[in-house]
Amino acid sequence: MTTSGDGAATSLKVLTICGSLRRESYNRKLMRAAIELAPPGFQITESIRIDELPYLNEDVAHAGLPAPVQRINEQVRAADAVVFVTPEYNYGVPGVLKNVLDWITTPHPPHNALRFKPVGLMGASIGNFGTVRCQLALRQTFLFIESYVMPKPEIYLFRAQDKFDTQGRLTDEPARELLKAYWPALRKFAGMIATTPHGEGVHA
Amino acid sequence: MTTSGDGAATSLKVLTICGSLRRESYNRKLMRAAIELAPPGFQITESIRIDELPYLNEDVAHAGLPAPVQRINEQVRAADAVVFVTPEYNYGVPGVLKNVLDWITTPHPPHNALRFKPVGLMGASIGNFGTVRCQLALRQTFLFIESYVMPKPEIYLFRAQDKFDTQGRLTDEPARELLKAYWPALRKFAGMIATTPHGEGVHA
Amino acid sequence: MTTSGDGAATSLKVLTICGSLRRESYNRKLMRAAIELAPPGFQITESIRIDELPYLNEDVAHAGLPAPVQRINEQVRAADAVVFVTPEYNYGVPGVLKNVLDWITTPHPPHNALRFKPVGLMGASIGNFGTVRCQLALRQTFLFIESYVMPKPEIYLFRAQDKFDTQGRLTDEPARELLKAYWPALRKFAGMIATTPHGEGVHA
Amino acid sequence: MTTSGDGAATSLKVLTICGSLRRESYNRKLMRAAIELAPPGFQITESIRIDELPYLNEDVAHAGLPAPVQRINEQVRAADAVVFVTPEYNYGVPGVLKNVLDWITTPHPPHNALRFKPVGLMGASIGNFGTVRCQLALRQTFLFIESYVMPKPEIYLFRAQDKFDTQGRLTDEPARELLKAYWPALRKFAGMIATTPHGEGVHA
Repeated sequence: MTTSGDGAATSLKVLTICGSLRRESYNRKLMRAAIELAPPGFQITESIRIDELPYLNEDVAHAGLPAPVQRINEQVRAADAVVFVTPEYNYGVPGVLKNVLDWITTPHPPHNALRFKPVGLMGASIGNFGTVRCQLALRQTFLFIESYVMPKPEIYLFRAQDKFDTQGRLTDEPARELLKAYWPALRKFAGMIATTPHGEGVHA
Repeated sequence: MTTSGDGAATSLKVLTICGSLRRESYNRKLMRAAIELAPPGFQITESIRIDELPYLNEDVAHAGLPAPVQRINEQVRAADAVVFVTPEYNYGVPGVLKNVLDWITTPHPPHNALRFKPVGLMGASIGNFGTVRCQLALRQTFLFIESYVMPKPEIYLFRAQDKFDTQGRLTDEPARELLKAYWPALRKFAGMIATTPHGEGVHA
Repeated sequence: MTTSGDGAATSLKVLTICGSLRRESYNRKLMRAAIELAPPGFQITESIRIDELPYLNEDVAHAGLPAPVQRINEQVRAADAVVFVTPEYNYGVPGVLKNVLDWITTPHPPHNALRFKPVGLMGASIGNFGTVRCQLALRQTFLFIESYVMPKPEIYLFRAQDKFDTQGRLTDEPARELLKAYWPALRKFAGMIATTPHGEGVHA
Repeated sequence: MTTSGDGAATSLKVLTICGSLRRESYNRKLMRAAIELAPPGFQITESIRIDELPYLNEDVAHAGLPAPVQRINEQVRAADAVVFVTPEYNYGVPGVLKNVLDWITTPHPPHNALRFKPVGLMGASIGNFGTVRCQLALRQTFLFIESYVMPKPEIYLFRAQDKFDTQGRLTDEPARELLKAYWPALRKFAGMIATTPHGEGVHA
């Protein structure tokens, strides 16, 4: 667990989920940089590794949710907001990350854990476009899930190989400023979502 | 102007914009049916015809916004929420409707009139899929515009030719029920959006 | 292995890959129905189960491709065309299937096995839209992969639960006719792709 | 009309259509640069201005196609391939360009003029992403139209303002090289498409 800020009662509890399994993933580095740059008042937790979940198979699901699926569902439920930091694979969402989302909507619980949850997206790439196509595909998926995805700021860290030093520290100043500004925006967005009783009525 | 309900101070003011120019458009019929089925407390206005706007040309825009563009911008600003009811053309947004959105973001005003505005989507088709691809493309566009598009209920009236009588009245009971439920959902969604001061801070 | 037709030298060799892991998957039933309805002259093979592949992790990949990844790469290379039959999960591609595509483009071989390969798409759903959103997301992914995806006919088997009998036989006549027509279209499409030397020059 | 090469019988006839109406449009400059850089053997024509077409209204269409619609249909039919060079507006296709595509599929002729036609895409932007989202939306539309869109090379001229001199000449060397390579790729792609009798059978 990584904690930023004082952990007071008013802290915003944020779960981060990284879509890459690589040790030296630029997306993991981006996630860590974002956490480091959070101002006080955020309690940020990294999710379990997403490859602990098996592949979704609804036949298996009917016999009960596997323990890692239960665990990540609990992590999501405990969070006020969830931030996904993920590479783009083949102009789309990494299969291993999509599988997490597929489990989360597998309908054992009456409502999926991400339903009505404020969600943020970030991505880093070696190429020029910073995962823009992946994020569009993810937004399409979160529409089904009924998460509220924060519209802006959009975080696309392109040519990531030029933006970290050898210790993995984000050295790009504009990116650092953008990440600092991300958290207050997420707090306001999450606050907006939270002020309304959903549960049954917002959506037919 | 079409008004539903009592027009009291607490009425939700909704602007509807139809993406079809046809006289006997199923989307216009769907829009009219939706308006008719609104419960009290909604003040619903149809926009000007969208073919009154010229094609967006930024050279023209620099000399000042054409009168119909100004007019629809005012209609959008005066509304608490905007509902688009549109056919799908070629798996995408009708050009004539996209042109409206292109004008709305042409940056004469400091902020575009749809920014932070609650938006709803509906569509009718003769085919089986009820404009689902158009609505995905529109959501991608509203992400740029920074409108808040209501996630659910999604309204896809497929095989529309079977669902209206010869007077153009919507006869499909499930569709009528869904439309009745749409308005309270929109009110809650719009209320959620409105409870937070945006303007500068939600988005970086 | 399932073989249709006479297996003559001129047979079109097709690999089918099912995106669902369920035993009683409608997509598996659709795949089997399609195979059954193939006219002579097609040699159709089902791929290995896609959950035999581990999750893509490029750190692992650098040490060598796991055996099931090598196996499915070989199956793809041996085929003249590949047909994906897959459910839609959360308006997107099932994670377990996307993971296969993520492995296929992991750049151990000089060119990925699906590059320039003719590809077909089919999908079945319980709902009304027959995986249309998943197929759009897949086409976006195949653009990166540089597969040639057959534009038409598009196969969307919606309300699949009404279209099979208790033995899993496809009973819907229009769907059976469409599947019969699919194979000659695929042969022509694959023939068109094959008549040109690609490899280096078609794409920059 | 702009002609490159010798206009011999074996020239590839290409129609270019620009999605911007601005005089100093970067997309027009990109289109002109591409035409200039074409090797011998290409006969390249610019389409009529797309704002000559009225908005698509099927009621109007039933009375006969307006003259500019007929004209652009003829231009498309006379071409071996069509290249669209277009800005991205609001993460989507400019309305004025989409309207052209909407007319082209309006079913007066038995088959639309773009059906089975080889199509290329290019785009320039001031921002970082070079119209990538517009091109994805266009590919979705061309799937309906049944054009064959060349997969690669993809042309995204980002930060276009840094890549032309004051005379509007493209000065970016990598971009110039990419454009030079574009034409032989288009020729091969168009040749591949043309070698097969379509018309009725490739698509069901």
